[in-house]
Amino acid sequence: VTGARPGPAGQATVRRHNLALVLRTVAAEEPVSRARVAARTGLTRGTVSSLVDELLAAGFVAELSPARGVPGRPASPLQLNRAGPAGLGVEIGVDAVGACVVDLSGTVRALRTVRSGHRDEPPAAALEPLARLTAEVVAEAGGQGLRVAGAVAALPGVVGPDGVLERAPNLPRWHDVDVAARVGAALAPVVGDVVVRAGNEADLAALAEREAGAGPDFLHVSGGIGVGAGVVLGGRPFHGAGGRAGELGHVVVDPDGPPCSCGGRGCLEQSAGLEPVLRAAGVADLDALATAVEAGDARCVAAVTGAGRALGVAVAGALNLLDVPAVVLGGAYPRLGPTFADAVEQEVALRVVWRSPVTVRVSVLGEGAALRGAAQSVVRELVDGAPA
Amino acid sequence: VTGARPGPAGQATVRRHNLALVLRTVAAEEPVSRARVAARTGLTRGTVSSLVDELLAAGFVAELSPARGVPGRPASPLQLNRAGPAGLGVEIGVDAVGACVVDLSGTVRALRTVRSGHRDEPPAAALEPLARLTAEVVAEAGGQGLRVAGAVAALPGVVGPDGVLERAPNLPRWHDVDVAARVGAALAPVVGDVVVRAGNEADLAALAEREAGAGPDFLHVSGGIGVGAGVVLGGRPFHGAGGRAGELGHVVVDPDGPPCSCGGRGCLEQSAGLEPVLRAAGVADLDALATAVEAGDARCVAAVTGAGRALGVAVAGALNLLDVPAVVLGGAYPRLGPTFADAVEQEVALRVVWRSPVTVRVSVLGEGAALRGAAQSVVRELVDGAPA
Repeated sequence: VTGARPGPAGQATVRRHNLALVLRTVAAEEPVSRARVAARTGLTRGTVSSLVDELLAAGFVAELSPARGVPGRPASPLQLNRAGPAGLGVEIGVDAVGACVVDLSGTVRALRTVRSGHRDEPPAAALEPLARLTAEVVAEAGGQGLRVAGAVAALPGVVGPDGVLERAPNLPRWHDVDVAARVGAALAPVVGDVVVRAGNEADLAALAEREAGAGPDFLHVSGGIGVGAGVVLGGRPFHGAGGRAGELGHVVVDPDGPPCSCGGRGCLEQSAGLEPVLRAAGVADLDALATAVEAGDARCVAAVTGAGRALGVAVAGALNLLDVPAVVLGGAYPRLGPTFADAVEQEVALRVVWRSPVTVRVSVLGEGAALRGAAQSVVRELVDGAPA
Repeated sequence: VTGARPGPAGQATVRRHNLALVLRTVAAEEPVSRARVAARTGLTRGTVSSLVDELLAAGFVAELSPARGVPGRPASPLQLNRAGPAGLGVEIGVDAVGACVVDLSGTVRALRTVRSGHRDEPPAAALEPLARLTAEVVAEAGGQGLRVAGAVAALPGVVGPDGVLERAPNLPRWHDVDVAARVGAALAPVVGDVVVRAGNEADLAALAEREAGAGPDFLHVSGGIGVGAGVVLGGRPFHGAGGRAGELGHVVVDPDGPPCSCGGRGCLEQSAGLEPVLRAAGVADLDALATAVEAGDARCVAAVTGAGRALGVAVAGALNLLDVPAVVLGGAYPRLGPTFADAVEQEVALRVVWRSPVTVRVSVLGEGAALRGAAQSVVRELVDGAPA
């Protein structure tokens, strides 16, 4: 969704276009022969050969050993390079930091997370352990022949198009911080001057779910202290007009409900965020809640069911607005079990107006999704665009 | 937002691309010289001349008289042809039908509407007066040198990607009807075998608002018996994954509220649709309500304020999800006056989480928007794509 118009098509544009087309074809069909790439793209064999040579030289594509026992000149199948360019994802959560490197195929090659008590501290309190962790994963990936070509930082807040964190109620000292610049400076000793972008953790988690096989069209809900959503449409993240779409936590489920940190009242976050759920259940933490719900404790079951219903009401509204046919319950929500998912599903089935069945399913990635998605978004851009 | 990948770029593709580029440039800059088109597109003068000749022959572009008094060969500025290809829009409302012809510039050249008591009747009851009305506007436009190149029908319901009306609670006999085919058959005696598509009236009304200068990013709310929304992002309609986005009327504003025609409870439509508002106000129709609100009648002011607040709650949720910075109140809502708009604005200001100011404004087109938008969407597609 963009208003930009393409310019006239010329010789260089055509080559760049076809280079990207060949790379995407290798990504989609690997391992794949040059002949098949030619057949799939409609380009001539000669053109494909020349473009593949360029991709080999840039390290984007690798040749596998030729198939043995085939008469004549052996064919070397192509695949995305598992060494060479890689994506770095880092996450600054409410009470943890993480770093992750994926190869061009999106496979995780190194990943570490660590608890960090930086919630009410200035950015440096999170950036210091983050830089240490990043150095570790980058070294680990480097040992496997990978070099970081770009980085994305995931944060629990609204990241503006300029990379500035506009709202992060649960990371108050990060408010109005230029995240891309700050994280970039902190990581420069480790990764040099690679471009660092910043994104919302719910959006990035949705991308990871997409890579893990969800989609192409779904709403990913990330449950935690806050409640965020990432929308994937046609296999791509939906960002809205200003890059801040998906603030499901501040959809109203009870107009006269309790005040919310956003200044409004009765937002979903006040019904389905983890803190009000634990309060309603009368337990101290998520593990205790999960255990009690499984054991059938009435108060805990009621708390989780109530939260699921509230989420279902908000999700149904979102589906009616966005027309997407599937919901993935992610973040901490998978830990609330089928009691929660069933309550969500029941409200969604009742309230979605169009007739297609809506799928409600629980994330397979859970709380690790945003970190993976951050790293994968780097390589997704490398593969979807043309190599520089 | 599409998952489709472009194929390789070749000679024919490049010409088609550049033809469309020249047409869009004429549309954006008219009246415009060939030299300026060349400068804006980056194409050579010779290429532009040849492409313009093709567009002149197809009737998409017209030459104005050359500028006088200029020495040397006079330049004939180009503009979109005001005769030639035209767009037909038709509307089947809950209690009226309409037809409208616009030229390639989107200007209305013929428009008629008529009340029609077809609400609980089979489709033929609306199609008969519609065909009569269409014959009249097509004749009127034909007298101005316009010929219909395509048609779009606007309906108050969810139109699936296949042109079938999936939900139209206020036109029950149209449910599951292939609207594009039925309207196409009814209009064939008038317009021959031009392609007829079908769309949701709220989406098409949003497009008309866009053409009238709103946007590029806004939510258009169409108030009536039902409440629908059209979303425009980057100047283009946002359709969601399945073409049915924008069902704002079935966003929940009160989870335990009154049952709704959709099977849910407490949908916005039960608070901000015209019927509950008139009931709460205790008046018979919209004119009486508007008069009473203006006179300060307490019950009517309270009814309109309550509806505006409910709409504001739902709109704020939609803005948080979609990240659009503006709302246009259309359909019958402009008739409810500033009392209504102020209540909407107040809730939106309270509940939108990101900090950009949100603009709430009242539509200038009101109930005529969908019909115009239907016709304009035809020419928009003609100008955005290349002529056949």
